[in-house]
Parts: sequence; structure tokens; C-alpha cells
Amino acid sequence: MPSFVDLNRLFKPKKIAIVGASSNMESISGRPLKLLNRYNYRGDIFPVNPKYDSLHGFKCYPDIRSLPASPDVAIIGVRAGLVPDILEQCGEKKVPFAVIFSSGFAEADDPQLQDKIIYIANKWNIHLVGPNCQGLVNFVDGVPLSFSASLDAEPLEPGHIAYVSQSGAFGFASFALGADSGVKFRYVVTTGNQVDLDVVDFGRFIIEDREVKLLILYMEGLKDGSKFLDLVQQAKKREIPIAVLKVGKSEVAKEAAKSHTAALTGDREVWDAVFKQYGVISISDVEDIIDLGTIFSSPKRATGKKVAVLTTSGGAGIIMTDLLDDYGLNVPVLDENTQEKIKPYIPPFGSSSNPIDMTAQVINDPKGFPGCLDAVLECPDIDMVTVIISMITGKSGEQMVQDLIAASQGTKKPINCTWLIDRKHGEVFLKQLKAAGVPLFQSLRRSAFALSALANWHEVMLKPTKDIEVRGEPFLSKLPLMMTEYDSKKLLEHWGVPVTNERLCFSLEEAIEASEEIGYPVALKVMSPQILHKTEAGVIALNLQNEEQIRNAYGRILEKARKFNAEANIEGVLVQEMVGSGLECMIGVKRDPIFGPFVAVGLGGIYVEVLRDVSLRRAPIDENTAMEMIEELKGYPLLAGARGQKRKDINALAKAVSLISRMACIESELNELDANPVFVLDEGKGVLVADALILRKEKE
Amino acid sequence: MPSFVDLNRLFKPKKIAIVGASSNMESISGRPLKLLNRYNYRGDIFPVNPKYDSLHGFKCYPDIRSLPASPDVAIIGVRAGLVPDILEQCGEKKVPFAVIFSSGFAEADDPQLQDKIIYIANKWNIHLVGPNCQGLVNFVDGVPLSFSASLDAEPLEPGHIAYVSQSGAFGFASFALGADSGVKFRYVVTTGNQVDLDVVDFGRFIIEDREVKLLILYMEGLKDGSKFLDLVQQAKKREIPIAVLKVGKSEVAKEAAKSHTAALTGDREVWDAVFKQYGVISISDVEDIIDLGTIFSSPKRATGKKVAVLTTSGGAGIIMTDLLDDYGLNVPVLDENTQEKIKPYIPPFGSSSNPIDMTAQVINDPKGFPGCLDAVLECPDIDMVTVIISMITGKSGEQMVQDLIAASQGTKKPINCTWLIDRKHGEVFLKQLKAAGVPLFQSLRRSAFALSALANWHEVMLKPTKDIEVRGEPFLSKLPLMMTEYDSKKLLEHWGVPVTNERLCFSLEEAIEASEEIGYPVALKVMSPQILHKTEAGVIALNLQNEEQIRNAYGRILEKARKFNAEANIEGVLVQEMVGSGLECMIGVKRDPIFGPFVAVGLGGIYVEVLRDVSLRRAPIDENTAMEMIEELKGYPLLAGARGQKRKDINALAKAVSLISRMACIESELNELDANPVFVLDEGKGVLVADALILRKEKE
Repeated sequence: MPSFVDLNRLFKPKKIAIVGASSNMESISGRPLKLLNRYNYRGDIFPVNPKYDSLHGFKCYPDIRSLPASPDVAIIGVRAGLVPDILEQCGEKKVPFAVIFSSGFAEADDPQLQDKIIYIANKWNIHLVGPNCQGLVNFVDGVPLSFSASLDAEPLEPGHIAYVSQSGAFGFASFALGADSGVKFRYVVTTGNQVDLDVVDFGRFIIEDREVKLLILYMEGLKDGSKFLDLVQQAKKREIPIAVLKVGKSEVAKEAAKSHTAALTGDREVWDAVFKQYGVISISDVEDIIDLGTIFSSPKRATGKKVAVLTTSGGAGIIMTDLLDDYGLNVPVLDENTQEKIKPYIPPFGSSSNPIDMTAQVINDPKGFPGCLDAVLECPDIDMVTVIISMITGKSGEQMVQDLIAASQGTKKPINCTWLIDRKHGEVFLKQLKAAGVPLFQSLRRSAFALSALANWHEVMLKPTKDIEVRGEPFLSKLPLMMTEYDSKKLLEHWGVPVTNERLCFSLEEAIEASEEIGYPVALKVMSPQILHKTEAGVIALNLQNEEQIRNAYGRILEKARKFNAEANIEGVLVQEMVGSGLECMIGVKRDPIFGPFVAVGLGGIYVEVLRDVSLRRAPIDENTAMEMIEELKGYPLLAGARGQKRKDINALAKAVSLISRMACIESELNELDANPVFVLDEGKGVLVADALILRKEKE
Repeated sequence: MPSFVDLNRLFKPKKIAIVGASSNMESISGRPLKLLNRYNYRGDIFPVNPKYDSLHGFKCYPDIRSLPASPDVAIIGVRAGLVPDILEQCGEKKVPFAVIFSSGFAEADDPQLQDKIIYIANKWNIHLVGPNCQGLVNFVDGVPLSFSASLDAEPLEPGHIAYVSQSGAFGFASFALGADSGVKFRYVVTTGNQVDLDVVDFGRFIIEDREVKLLILYMEGLKDGSKFLDLVQQAKKREIPIAVLKVGKSEVAKEAAKSHTAALTGDREVWDAVFKQYGVISISDVEDIIDLGTIFSSPKRATGKKVAVLTTSGGAGIIMTDLLDDYGLNVPVLDENTQEKIKPYIPPFGSSSNPIDMTAQVINDPKGFPGCLDAVLECPDIDMVTVIISMITGKSGEQMVQDLIAASQGTKKPINCTWLIDRKHGEVFLKQLKAAGVPLFQSLRRSAFALSALANWHEVMLKPTKDIEVRGEPFLSKLPLMMTEYDSKKLLEHWGVPVTNERLCFSLEEAIEASEEIGYPVALKVMSPQILHKTEAGVIALNLQNEEQIRNAYGRILEKARKFNAEANIEGVLVQEMVGSGLECMIGVKRDPIFGPFVAVGLGGIYVEVLRDVSLRRAPIDENTAMEMIEELKGYPLLAGARGQKRKDINALAKAVSLISRMACIESELNELDANPVFVLDEGKGVLVADALILRKEKE
């Protein structure tokens, strides 16, 4: 387990220097002092500015050198060009943390200036936040180290949501919207250009606080994939879900991200695969932050995906059922017993099944709504309850609020509420429900999304996190630098992956001998590192039935090889068994610059190329995960035996995928593998790799 | 063009009777009077209730018979059982419209009571709204015929959005949320059980009002598909987009819809196909209603899908770019000229490309934000502008509001704004923008969705609406009742669809003769209406090369047919040419109970069954639409010639699909057709239907 950066002095500083502090409390360098005062910060504040002797009652110092003590943090809001000198002073004064608001570094095409501050920080061992950030806030201890206008209000109570954003403006703007919707944050951090501390460092430190119940990250780029994955796994151990808004998925957005915080954003498929594999919640909008913040602020967690829908509007209940279904949740028909308990409370034009249409008349009986709630909460077949209330106003509304709060407090099952009402009629109700911790929504879609996040998190927690054993010595270094199919299959064979029976031959006679040995029919293939696409070059002869056909083909394909590329280095002719049956699949490896090797599996041939039906996971994976990958293929029924065909040897395919994924972790020189076709034979008969191509990493 | 029901007296009544009017102004039967007063209704109001002499200053009548004049509308809020008698009275009094709030009819399993009121209404020619509805509101003339608490506020100004909902509670609750978000409605109607007037009738009447700019429908079931499609097409002629929240897509929701308003909800794929084909906007949540209401309330319409993103937060701009990309919109790189205009206003750490990261510093120059806005509005390569503002507060925020309003008023291009700010800091700005008609959002996703709706509507309007000619006499009636492949292909041939060369034979000798005539190789197939799945029964012999093979196969397959089903009626043996090449596709017809015949096309064989890669359209379609269907197949590259394969005869396939779709409209006895495989030969060589199966409609 890698260690992490101790950020205690940054989050709980006893002394803070504000470099470039301004008398204008509305300027970027003036606001931090104002905000620290507003949050009643109790430590020492040292404004630094040669222009003033004192600022707002604090003694002001001309420079860092003159400070009476070594501050825990220096906040720096001056012009970019001045930052290096200030950091030198911080170093001399032994300041451990600097928060740099200033813009104008790598994101403005001035990498030299950025390199300079990195050099100075390293020299003095100063940890940097930013530059080009809006700082951070610790709401637990009331420490705002930021200039954001979003903090310019009554100090907020700390909650259980931590939010770390690479973007300063988006980070604090979305925080403001979230707080306005009633989400209580614990920490908000923005990291900007991340020349030192990045989103992951902050996440890793923050999850040590056991009061954190959700960690939200906004990320543009990522330097170290394994550090991020370690964060995800450490968070899972502490039962803290992580939601990531990963931007730069579209091509235009990727380009934009480079100029924004100078980040490389990575490959969409790779990120999607990683999020799925490691149980990260993928989000894409500020409202997702609000919705997840709302649902995970409640301490209740789901134990399954079966939802009871209790509604005063039949129509809204039906919409919700469709939406829950879209999000993969179930709305099961209730058992007789539960229905019998509900029936007395609802009129004949309602419905006691699920969705339970209580109709607005449920309010006519004081026991009606609580009775329905109790019935579904007691039902062992229900994991979560979602309540939808339409325009119920006045005293009836007030009663429903009280009933809902009582029911919610009396159960461990998650209950959320969607109240479709305008502010004039509903504001009081909505406030009361929020204050009582009942997750509240005004959109059916977002309510369904929040419940699905709970259900998915339950499934993530159920999955064991285990290290996949990866053993063995690299073998690739023993093979030729320029690889042919023959060499590639030698590597696969070495790692236990079954390949076709074959022999490399150097003469026609040898080829005939090999064919007899292997048994007809056979295939002949010219092996040359310069001819990788053999079919296109015509250097393959398939399905040769006897010696005569070998004699005819042997010279012809060598002739074609010479015509295709006269310079090509011919390393022999491969004689290979023809695989008579089996379904064509492919197994691939691709090395991602951020996350390392990934393994892919799909149906082979022309269909995979056109239909792109491929599963991807970060290597290594075990056979269970390989099986999951295979099962999620759209073409899976073909492997499982669709339309009366025999079931194929899916276990053997899963084993091969797992073996190849482990191999990819050890063979660090391997950049890409394309094993295609891999014939998957009938159940029990195994798989055979019939062709494979390995590309090594370019030497750096 | 079918006529429509004239609802003028309902929407603009001069006299209204309120049957069961109550002295309790908060009860369902008390509220209508209160609301009419609140909206300053100027016509006559006749409360009807034998309990009172007068009610709230109005003379109260014991029954309808006693009314001094014939009201235009009777509002009925009494117990279900009393409704028939009241309707009889309405009939006698010549009341043309009755709005029935009462529940307890078909949705409560009392179809007899429902049938009774239908009978009475028909007898007296009374048009009914409901029962089990919450009535309607005409905001233009200030006529609320409803009891909804959502109207219990200051009278609302009329806008341009019309909303017709089958569900009363959901309809008025979502209206309330929309109005609260600043959407101005023109008409809100709820239709409940729709025993007479349905959602489509109201929509059809409402689009005659040229001030309506968007029609939103909430539908559970639909009786008459063609009436709905006529509405959609009439609305398109008037440039009014229609958005439909169609519920009951999931299986559980379908069941629930039945009990809710006793509606049959139909097939998901069919609805999706219809929405796509006819340019209906498909929505699924209350927020979609708000977002579309917001964007279409502005008179501006898109002329393309190229969006400029102007943002004060680089991060938010990148998220928006990803989201716009997800919704199919483009964020093009700006031309040099436009970038040069923008550059002077933004700092070096911003970006003048697109997304345009103005950074918060753009506000330091008074010409900065307007300068950037003007530059993108003048850019001929930009169709729409989306502005994202983060936590810009105070005077700077005020200035941005003014600049944005000025820019919006000076251009025909749609501009929308996403302001990520809390209410405390932003409420004034948001109100000003709304008042000035600038479409405003606080979610990037919803803002992107709204722009995509504009762009999609532009594409819908570009597409000509033309009637597809369908000519000819039914031929199916001339074919045997119990159909074989041979009969099915006879029908296709009759309609001009190319089928394999084949001959039905009744003896071995005839089969040999036919084979010589057709040319080897041939296939033999036993024809029997009792053996429809010929491969499974083993009654097919493929690829027969000569007379000897015919002799061997002929007896064998007849033997198998007898073994498979001794009772089967053998109608002969089909001798058929073998199609040597071509890609296997399928063309299907399915008759939907609501919308009539649909035509489907997809790649054939095992892949279509497993991967379900099929396009669906309502018949009839022309060849252009058939081409669109083919192009949207995931496997389309296979037809277009993927990986060096020859391009197939896609035109011939499109022609066959169109021919079959027209045939389906004329052959009203045809319930289902499965032409599979249809061999699509190389370009210019046509298509050949090699097998086909037709099912007739069950006799009713």
C-alpha cells in the first residue's frame, strides 16, 4: 500500500500567510482575509504586502522573510511572474504548503515559468496547490483558503460530501449550486494545474476522515493511473464511493482540456472500462453532483435493487417505473400479504400492486399514507422505497411530511421522495424534509438515478477486491525484435495459451514433411516481419488437402511475398493445422499510457470490426472477470449456443483471456497484441489461437 | 384532411355550470368557483347544489334542469354513481361539454358505469372531458375549469406552450414546476380516462392557435394511431413541434398504466420508430417539459447544429463540449478571423478556439464579453451560441446580464445561458434573463439537451412531408388460406419483389426436369403449411449438383416430412436456384394494432437474431426512407463494402423494402411477413428473396 501525503497542516493550519493581501476585500487577493474572518478562523493571519503596515486590523508584513513565525500555508494571489521569488522566500521560511491562485503558467503556454516553480518547490520541499486554482475549504474546522464568491455567505455547516475539482471556477460554481440545493459539503478543493498535489493526492488524504460518505472528483487529466486506482480501492475499504466527472471525452473537448489546465485527458473507452471495473460512478453534469450528494448524505445504503414506488399520481408512478427500469432497477409486483395491508387505505381506482397508486385520496385517512409506507417497508422483497407526491398542499402536505419523516427515521431501508410542487406551495415541506435528512428530488429521472447509484454501490461492495496473482519472468526479450506470427504464438504458448499445431519450414520438402506430421488439411503462411497483413499480401494458402496442393502453393505464396515487398526478410513458411470448426473470436492487448495494459475480447472476423462488440478491462484479471467480459458481449448468445448451435468452450476462452492479461503485466515490452482469430471450439474442447500479432513498445 | 372537434365553447365558455359546487372552497367541488373568481372570469357561473340557495354570492340551483340558460360547460365533481343522471340532465338542457373530475369508472374496474356515461353522452351529443381528470385551463382568456391546487396563486400570464396530459395529477404538478421555472403556458389540459375527447383531439384543436410554439403531450395509451400522426403532420405544417412523454415502456409500467387510466400502452420499438419517423420529440421526465418549454418559448429557431461555447469556466466549457457531442451537436474550431476578433479580450491562459474559455477576467474589459459574443454571432459557421457563466457576482454579473440580453435581442441566432450560481448571489440575474426571454439553465446537460431539440427540429422541418403513393388491388385473397414459402413468394413476385427462380413439382421426374431448366446447383424444399420451420424439420436439401443428388434427396426429404408430421398436408416439392453469393439480409412486416403495418430491414442470419440490428418504420415508405433505414444499421458497412469486400446492391434492397412496405398497406389481410434470407448481390446485380413466410390475420 503506497503511503500518502499528509495534508494536516494544509487543512488545519495554525498560521496562514496571505501574500499580496489587498485592502480591496472584493479582489482575488483581498477575499481570502474576508472569508477567514467570516468563518471565524482562530489561528494567526499574516497579510504580506509592502504597501501596507496593517490590513483590516492585522499587522501587514513587507515580505515572507519578515514574518514572526513560519506559517503552515502561504496563499499566493499575485502576478504569475512574481511567484518564483515568493516561493524562494517560502522555502527559506520553511513554509510547507503554498496555495497558488495565480494564472499564466502551462495553461497559457508558459511551461518555463511552471517548470521554475516546480524546481523551487522541490528544492525547498514545499507542497503546492495550483497554480491556476481557487484554493480549498475545510468546513469541519472552518478554514476557507479560497477567494471564491460562492463562500460569500453565512458559514456553512459541514456535511459528509468531499469534492475535489481540477477546475476552480467549475468546482466552486457547482459547489454553490449543490449547497443551495441542501447538499452539505465537508471539504471542497480545487487543484488547477496540479504541478504538485493533484486530485488523487487530495482524495487519498480526505478518505482517511471516516465522516466522509462520498468523494466527488472532477478530473481533466491524470498522470498516474495506478495511484488513482489505489485511491479507489482504499476508498472502497472505507466504504466510501467515488464519483468522477471525467471530461475531455469528445475529440474537441480533449483539445480544449489541454489549453485549460494543460492536461492530457486519455481515451474514452479506457476510462469507461476502468470506471466499470473498479466501481467508480461516472457522472457528467453539475446536477449529478447534487443528486449523488443528496442521496449519499443519508447514512442509508441499499441492500438490493428492488424498489417500491408509492405515489399520489398514477401517471408519475408509471413514468418512474419506466425510469427505474431504464436504470436497471426492479419494481416487483408485491406479494399478496403486502397488497392486503395496503388495500384498505386506497380507493378502488388506485392500485395496490407496484407502482402503488395511492391516489390523492390516501390523505383522507390519517392512517392511509403511514399504513402504505409501513406495508412496503415491512415487505422483505423490497430494498428501497421511492415516494412521489404531486400537488398535495396545505395541511395534507404537512401531514405527509411528518409521516414520511417518521417512516424514514424508523427504517434502515433507503427512502427518497420526489415532490412535484412549486415553491409557493411546497417550499416549507421541501425544507422540512431536507432538514430531516430525507433525500428529496423534484425530477423523477434524477430520483431514479440516485436510487440506482445506491443499488450499484451495493453491488460494488459485494464484489471482493482481490489482487490477481501475476507470476513469471518476461520471455519476450528472448524472441526476435521484429516479430512474425510464429514468434507471437511462441510467446502465447510460453504463457500457456493454446495455439494451432504448426511448424516453421525452410524448404518445400520440410513443408511436405510437416504437413504429413500435422495431418491434412493444412495452411501455409509466409513469415516475414515486413509482411504483417498476410491476407492482403496474398501470402497465405488455406485448406491444402494433399502433397500436390502443397507443391502448388508453396512456390506461389513465396513469389507473392517477393512481389509484395522485394526487400522483405522471409523467415520461413509456416505449416499450420486447419481448425475445422469453432466460433471465431479475438483477444487483444493494448497498453494505455495512464493505466497500463488492457485486455479485450470479442467475436472475431468482419463482425467485430464493423459492429465493435468488444469488452475491455484493465489487466490483470482473473477468470471470473474474463467470464463477465464474455457475458457482456452482445454476441454472447452465439458463444452460449444460439438457435440450436452447440455451446462453445467459454471457460477455455475465459482462461485464455485471463492468461493473456497476466502475461501483459509481465511482458512490459509488449505494447499491443491482436490474437485473431481465436477459434472457440465446442464445450470441453478448448480454444486455439490461429493467428496473432505482437507489437513491441517503441524504444524511447 | 380529417376534420377536428371544435372546442371553442369549451375553451371560451360564456356560461359555466358547477355541479356539486361546495361551500368548502378547498374541496374538489369548491375549488373551481374559487379559481374562476381568482382568474376574474367574466361569464356566468351557475353553481348547482340542492343544499344551498346561494354560494359565495352566486345564485345556486338545485339541479341542471332549473338553470336559467344552457351552459357551455358543466363541471362535474360528484360521486361516480351520480354522474349518469347529471349527464341526462345536461343532455336535456343541451349542454355541449361536460368536464368530469369524478373517479371510479374503468380505472376502478367498473366498465359498466363508464359504458353508461358514454351511452348517455352519445345519445345527447355531449362531448366529455374525463372522467378521472383534473380539467383544463385556457390562460389566454383566463378560464380555469379545474380544481388543481397548482392554480391557487396569482393568475399566470399566457405564453406559447400548450400541454395536454392524460394524467391529471402529473399534468398539473409538472405544469406547476414548469411555471415555477418561468415557463409560460397557454393551455393546460388533462384528459383522464378519455371516454370521448382524448389527448389527440385537444392537440388538434390547440394547434389552430398560431401563438402556440410547442405542444407537449403526456400519453399512456392511444386508440387511433393515424389520428395521432395526422396531428403531428398538421402541427409540422404550422411549424409547431410536438414533444411526447409516452409512458408504459417497461413491462411493469405497462401493467400499471392499465389500472391507472385503463389504457393500453403499446410496443416500445413501435413508438420509438414512429417518433423518429415523424419527428416527434421523445421525453421522459418533468424536467424535459421545463427545458423544452424554456427553449421553444423563445421565437428563435436553429438553422444548423454548430454551436459556439462561450464560458467563464474552462472546465464547464469542456464538460459542455462533451455533452453537446453526446447530443449530436458540433462544436467546430473557429476560423482565424473570428479567433482574431476574440483574442484581444481574453488573457493568454484562456482560449479563443471553441469552447471559448473567456476566463472570469473577460469582465475586466467592458467590451470583453460583448466583443466575444459579437464575434461568434457574426461567424457564419456558427448556428447557435451557448453561454456558460460560473460564480460571477455583483456588478460584474449585472453587466453580463445586460450584455447577454443586448446580444440576444440583436440576433436571430439562438443564444442560451447556463449560469452556475446559487440563489443568494444569482437570483436577480436569473430573473432578469428570464424576463428578457433568454433561455436559462442551471445544468449543462439540460442546456445541451435544449439546444439539441432546436437542431433536431430544424432537421425535421427540412424533411419534406409527402404522401407515399400506394396503388394496386389486394392479391393475397387469391392465394391459399394456409400459405407455404411458395405462396408467400408468389405474393412478393406479384408486387415486383425479385424472388429466386423456382418451380413447384409433384414428382421426382418433374423435379429433375425443373432442375435442368433452372440449372444446377439447386435446392429442394418440401412445401407444407404445417411445416413452416423447414430447416428444423430437415425437409430441405441444399446445393444439389446433379440428377443423382436430386434422386437421393427427393425421397429422403419427403420421408422426413412424414416423420416430422404425419398429418401434414404436402403441397409439393419446391425446386429452387441456389444463390451463389450476396449478403444475407431480412425484410419483415408486422402489423401494429395502433399504427398499422411496419416494415423492418436488417442483416439476416444468426447475427440479426442475436444482435437485433434492425431498422423499423411505419409503412408505407419511399426508397429514400428505406435507404435511411439501411444506413442506420450497425452492420451497414458490411453492405457498403467493408474491408475490401464489394459494395452490395443497396439501391435494390431499398427498392424491395419500399415495395414491401406499400404492399403491406394494401394487403390488409397480411399480419406478418418474414422474408429471410434476402440475398443482396453485388452492386447493380439486385436482390433475391430466397425464403419468405407470410402469416395472415386471425379471423375476428
